[in-house]
Amino acid sequence: MQKLIFTNEVGQALAGLVGELNPAGVFFLADSNTRPIAESLNAFGAKVIEIPAGDENKNLQTLASVWEVLSTSGATRRSLLVNVGGGMVTDLGGFAAASFKRGIRFINVATTLLGAVDAAVGGKTGVNFLHFKNEIGAFAPADAVIISTRYFSTLPAEELRSGFAEMLKHGLISSGETYRRLLAFDIADADLEALLPLLEENVKVKEHIVEIDPREQGIRKALNLGHTAGHAFESLAMERRRPIPHGFAVAHGLLVEMVLSNLLLGFPSAELHAVAALLREAYAMEPVRCGDYDALIELMRHDKKNSSRGVINFTLLNRPGDPVIDSTADEDTIRAALDIYRELLGQ
Amino acid sequence: MQKLIFTNEVGQALAGLVGELNPAGVFFLADSNTRPIAESLNAFGAKVIEIPAGDENKNLQTLASVWEVLSTSGATRRSLLVNVGGGMVTDLGGFAAASFKRGIRFINVATTLLGAVDAAVGGKTGVNFLHFKNEIGAFAPADAVIISTRYFSTLPAEELRSGFAEMLKHGLISSGETYRRLLAFDIADADLEALLPLLEENVKVKEHIVEIDPREQGIRKALNLGHTAGHAFESLAMERRRPIPHGFAVAHGLLVEMVLSNLLLGFPSAELHAVAALLREAYAMEPVRCGDYDALIELMRHDKKNSSRGVINFTLLNRPGDPVIDSTADEDTIRAALDIYRELLGQ
Repeated sequence: MQKLIFTNEVGQALAGLVGELNPAGVFFLADSNTRPIAESLNAFGAKVIEIPAGDENKNLQTLASVWEVLSTSGATRRSLLVNVGGGMVTDLGGFAAASFKRGIRFINVATTLLGAVDAAVGGKTGVNFLHFKNEIGAFAPADAVIISTRYFSTLPAEELRSGFAEMLKHGLISSGETYRRLLAFDIADADLEALLPLLEENVKVKEHIVEIDPREQGIRKALNLGHTAGHAFESLAMERRRPIPHGFAVAHGLLVEMVLSNLLLGFPSAELHAVAALLREAYAMEPVRCGDYDALIELMRHDKKNSSRGVINFTLLNRPGDPVIDSTADEDTIRAALDIYRELLGQ
Repeated sequence: MQKLIFTNEVGQALAGLVGELNPAGVFFLADSNTRPIAESLNAFGAKVIEIPAGDENKNLQTLASVWEVLSTSGATRRSLLVNVGGGMVTDLGGFAAASFKRGIRFINVATTLLGAVDAAVGGKTGVNFLHFKNEIGAFAPADAVIISTRYFSTLPAEELRSGFAEMLKHGLISSGETYRRLLAFDIADADLEALLPLLEENVKVKEHIVEIDPREQGIRKALNLGHTAGHAFESLAMERRRPIPHGFAVAHGLLVEMVLSNLLLGFPSAELHAVAALLREAYAMEPVRCGDYDALIELMRHDKKNSSRGVINFTLLNRPGDPVIDSTADEDTIRAALDIYRELLGQ
């Protein structure tokens, strides 16, 4: 059972958890940005393993470097790894722990909004491989996740926006009210105090879904809303060596999939305009061109969520709060949706 | 639940399983030795992925090459991987499946005695890393395991002996009768028909233990008998680029740990002589030298079964059929045991 702790007293919470888990040794994993946070939390004389920041480093080579430090520093099966960072660190660190000596325990300390709302909770771990996102990994829940807003004030605006896109997704799949509360929040000029209760409500939406369906055989697929198209945007940007923040890709993926929902299930078109306005205000991204459609569709085909070759799976929506998992769309419909998406953004 | 099928009608059994599992696509994994067997079983038009044979290739590079073929050949989460081979293929293939897109289903077809009795059953998967055996991996049971003796007749004698060492281990931890029946069997001139009932009894010993304790928190540790010292022998041989068969290392590891059991728990010394005689007859290995002790003990210290740094864990025995898990021995006792082990072998 994954323990979820909301607190700004992070050091105290961590010391309590380590006391309970009673590991034979503690290791910290941080990236070049979060290393100071890890050092500030290291009341255990633990080794701090540093990896380079950035999703482009969430790969097999970085993973192997973490395994190597664990191996050569005497980590045992009873050691504990504390991942301090955003989604890149908790995804990679979670899989490093899940696969080292066939699995050691780990704790995630989420330092970004995106990490808190998305990656740190729910047990999806992994690294990118070739051009595919999270192609290699495991379902491995952290023993505990600590979520605090104290590290968010130093985040770049785009990190906050990135996390907010995942919050919007949770709103869209859980209830119209939650979704509308989020639309009313001004993420372009965020009040972190006001964000905290929204965040706690939001993470609990995810936690509840993951509890019911940990291995994504049913309702958990709703969490993939926005991610089939979103991953394609993200992968294309990565291939072109102009990476974009995950949450920006998801925000745009949400709009594409809301358009698909409109075309296939009659999702209300007024909502498309509301979300398009938000994207224009806070999620500026390089425009999609007609010449990108083939590459985007090919990337969607490779999405690990597809259940058979050649079919592209989506989570769609009847209306806010009413997701439809295991939906599919054919290529022509996806092209039509990309056209409408571009019109909505005035591209 | 792992399905365990004993049959010589392997193709028929496999077709039945594939029918039940109804995968979106089938892939075979084989090494250069077992590729013809995989081809003979491939009634599915499946891609056969070939990796180089030998434990020295059970590494991250080979693993990544398997992931790459799966990725670029359109494997999805609903694909099935059929691993055809000995322990190297089922360990590596099992982890490849367990980690590809966070886990796809897999079947093991054991083609060696060692694989049948040890690696194919029980869900321990993984690859070697740096100089450490199975340092990276997962607990991931196959959806089904097919065990047949039909492929054993073409095995080199040392493969059969290697598997027999694991059978002897199962005898030692399960019952004095089973152990004695095995000692009475002539593995140096093996009758495969007579081996079959012994094998089925033996695999079921392991299956039963794994069922009770899949993640090795208690009684499953008994299966590690012989493996703390055995892995050290095996790793040392690998470091020196003169690899020895896993089962030979285990056979010698069993004797070292029986000696430790004698020193620490009064395990009967007559059994030491019986097993030493078997080792001299069928498990010839390069003699251990005094100068090797430090390296062997250092390797034992790195064993992933150790629960904390600096302590070396063993499974020991009060007598045949009565294992004692979570035992430890200090360095002096291990040195004394190595001395006695060498005397028993006339080194």
